[in-house]
Amino acid sequence: MSNIAALLADIVGAHNLLTGDAVTDDYSHDEVLTTPPQKPRYVAKPATADEVSRILQAATEHRIPVTARGSGTGLSGAAIPRNDGLVLSFERMNAVLEIDPTDQVAVVQPGVTLTALDAATVDTGLRYMVYPGELSSSVGGNVGTNAGGMRAVKYGVARHNVLGLQAVLPTGEIIRTGGRIAKVSTGYDLTQLIVGSEGTLALATEVTVKLHPRLDHSATVLAPFADLDQVMTAVPEIVASGLGPYILEYIDNVTMAALVHTQNLELGIPDRIRDSCQAYLVVALENTTSQRLDEDVERAGELVAELGAQDAFILEGSSARKLVEAREKAFWTAKAIGADDIIDTVVPRSAMPEFLAGARDLATAAGAAAAGCGHAGDGNVHLAIFCKDTRARKQLMTDIFALAMKLGGAISGEHGLGRAKTPYFLELEDPAKVALMRRIKHSFDPAGILNPDVILATAE
Amino acid sequence: MSNIAALLADIVGAHNLLTGDAVTDDYSHDEVLTTPPQKPRYVAKPATADEVSRILQAATEHRIPVTARGSGTGLSGAAIPRNDGLVLSFERMNAVLEIDPTDQVAVVQPGVTLTALDAATVDTGLRYMVYPGELSSSVGGNVGTNAGGMRAVKYGVARHNVLGLQAVLPTGEIIRTGGRIAKVSTGYDLTQLIVGSEGTLALATEVTVKLHPRLDHSATVLAPFADLDQVMTAVPEIVASGLGPYILEYIDNVTMAALVHTQNLELGIPDRIRDSCQAYLVVALENTTSQRLDEDVERAGELVAELGAQDAFILEGSSARKLVEAREKAFWTAKAIGADDIIDTVVPRSAMPEFLAGARDLATAAGAAAAGCGHAGDGNVHLAIFCKDTRARKQLMTDIFALAMKLGGAISGEHGLGRAKTPYFLELEDPAKVALMRRIKHSFDPAGILNPDVILATAE
Repeated sequence: MSNIAALLADIVGAHNLLTGDAVTDDYSHDEVLTTPPQKPRYVAKPATADEVSRILQAATEHRIPVTARGSGTGLSGAAIPRNDGLVLSFERMNAVLEIDPTDQVAVVQPGVTLTALDAATVDTGLRYMVYPGELSSSVGGNVGTNAGGMRAVKYGVARHNVLGLQAVLPTGEIIRTGGRIAKVSTGYDLTQLIVGSEGTLALATEVTVKLHPRLDHSATVLAPFADLDQVMTAVPEIVASGLGPYILEYIDNVTMAALVHTQNLELGIPDRIRDSCQAYLVVALENTTSQRLDEDVERAGELVAELGAQDAFILEGSSARKLVEAREKAFWTAKAIGADDIIDTVVPRSAMPEFLAGARDLATAAGAAAAGCGHAGDGNVHLAIFCKDTRARKQLMTDIFALAMKLGGAISGEHGLGRAKTPYFLELEDPAKVALMRRIKHSFDPAGILNPDVILATAE
Repeated sequence: MSNIAALLADIVGAHNLLTGDAVTDDYSHDEVLTTPPQKPRYVAKPATADEVSRILQAATEHRIPVTARGSGTGLSGAAIPRNDGLVLSFERMNAVLEIDPTDQVAVVQPGVTLTALDAATVDTGLRYMVYPGELSSSVGGNVGTNAGGMRAVKYGVARHNVLGLQAVLPTGEIIRTGGRIAKVSTGYDLTQLIVGSEGTLALATEVTVKLHPRLDHSATVLAPFADLDQVMTAVPEIVASGLGPYILEYIDNVTMAALVHTQNLELGIPDRIRDSCQAYLVVALENTTSQRLDEDVERAGELVAELGAQDAFILEGSSARKLVEAREKAFWTAKAIGADDIIDTVVPRSAMPEFLAGARDLATAAGAAAAGCGHAGDGNVHLAIFCKDTRARKQLMTDIFALAMKLGGAISGEHGLGRAKTPYFLELEDPAKVALMRRIKHSFDPAGILNPDVILATAE
């Protein structure tokens, strides 16, 4: 056993340190499509913030690259470690520490999955509203990528739902930021700086998240449109209507066909409409009483009709749930039908028609294809890119990202940059901002040990 | 004219640079009660981001302390300059650049006042929802302090409503952060780091803020309670009810008496109730239809009765508006009745009873008094401190802040630290966090020119 391994084993206990052949393939990848897996030299499974602190101190002292891992469900490769590095797995720090119905918060360890947190809150009538599709994802992972998901249009992304952290700096200090408080103007907002930093600044060892009341009454309106542009024009009208949908998604016809086919969806849409529509809008509504919900659904039906929908199908109970679940699995569908890469670019809502038309044109010109769906209410477009040639695909992705940025958007709305998107970011982002981010990174992580290939890549 | 003055005059034009006797008293203070005014050596009034950039470059080169100023309505002394320093006043950068109803954003220069922004949005049916009491405050000032106000319980504080910035670094680089987008996971969130940094990291020269639909129907329920603890116990119940109040305030009887007296309020509360109640709860509701509003008001009335209110008065139209305006002016009332300092501590909602009782006990033990009101829904307690002896008052403030922090709260919920609260912060905050904030500050401002006495004070 190497000196480093002995040191780490001393911190977490020998059975919580994996080295050599004991490191299983699981720790070499997340769900990114393009970046190849890499096995780390060490996997450490700490049980406490103090153990995390001692691991990071050792890593800083010995210059060991550290990649934090929650459930490994990320889509950008932020959890792929270096070959000579350490995976710090939060799988043992998976306790729900407290559900506080008065302050409407949950305090959890980072390894808690969304499934576990949902189970822990169900009896309180409250719920953590960040749902990035994958329910096996961890809260710590949500913090790392600033996860979003379908409900963000009403409830915001992880950033808006994370109120406080206990976090460990790469130099070992354990700090607390924010708290079970809704507002704070007391120095720099370290919570928000760490959220979305993809394990490059500090590692969260405890997360305080906001809970919202579960509303008892919900229904989903599915509206087919002949024209994708009509969908995009409808979105801001629905946002402005005061209906407050908790889901507002678009699904293009290619993606809908794939979802229906791969997941055996039965939505009751006549062939005539299905064949003539370019895209669907999914509007999910919820309210405190069934009467208010019924009124809202009726108003939503009228509104989409005014906005050009060919029809409006009210989905309730299991068919609504199945559609939403199918949409949540859009990534898996894209993967199943052979997508070569995925994009989760965000643009201003008003720029979605121009962005989608431009991305389609770029794909066509490259002999490729792009199909998708997205969080229309947030301007967050998810495209599956079909382009076998790696070089052509990278150029196409670069061009699509550049287009999004020209329109006032950004490369990633919720997946994060990871290893997969970091090179595009470094190529396209304002060098003054990248330089500032490097200085901020240095202010947290002077030895550069935390996920050194993500956001601000250094030479491997 | 000194070399520096000539340099600055060259950037902004001679008539937009004030020096010597031309510097009026206005530039020497904001509305803080305790910190004495200080006249700066220079006042520069730039018109563009480029001019701001050139000023900051010159300031960095010549080590001139720079204090940014919006409307000067801050309550913590963050706009008080150094004697040898420069006030960078945004009074000429006061244009509403764009109201975009599709993306539901406004793009404004930092000197725009809330009154001007409200006027610019009224015809669109949208509104900027941050209302920190003082309508002459500027959006740039809101960014600096992460301003809150009464509507934060529903709409969040400035942090939740600022989507993007154009900002100038102290070294002169002009960067853009965020945008008219609802979510982004593309590198560190520089927007959120600059919001609330009180002019110590970078200066915003353009702000993109979120707009929300104006709801047409609103009413206010005023509920007197015999006991302050009952009010505090009622608050989380109302938050959890799903009624979604846009204002949820408590006002103690001392403060209510002062508001009624100084502002000639006529609330129609019988003497019998007024004399026997310790505190009031103000619950403002809004909805899309009058029918829904009426239902909500009825439900709120029932709920406060269940929670122990002595009665529930429905205020509509002008009496509701007058009460809210009076509450907004609570600071001026406190000042008028001789308050020696003010506190805007935030604690978890659940800790408000313990905090208020503790603060009262500390004040009594110090031979002082503390009365107040606050954003109960946010746990944001505003106390007026009556204690003539400076030393005793500083000790009392320290003890109250320490109590708030022990309960999981923070020194300031929305006013910011400014010059007034920075010493308490540096005394009470975890040194590891302060050290980290110093390194972050240095990553933006290597020469330490931006508001050097605020958040992280250096020797003057």
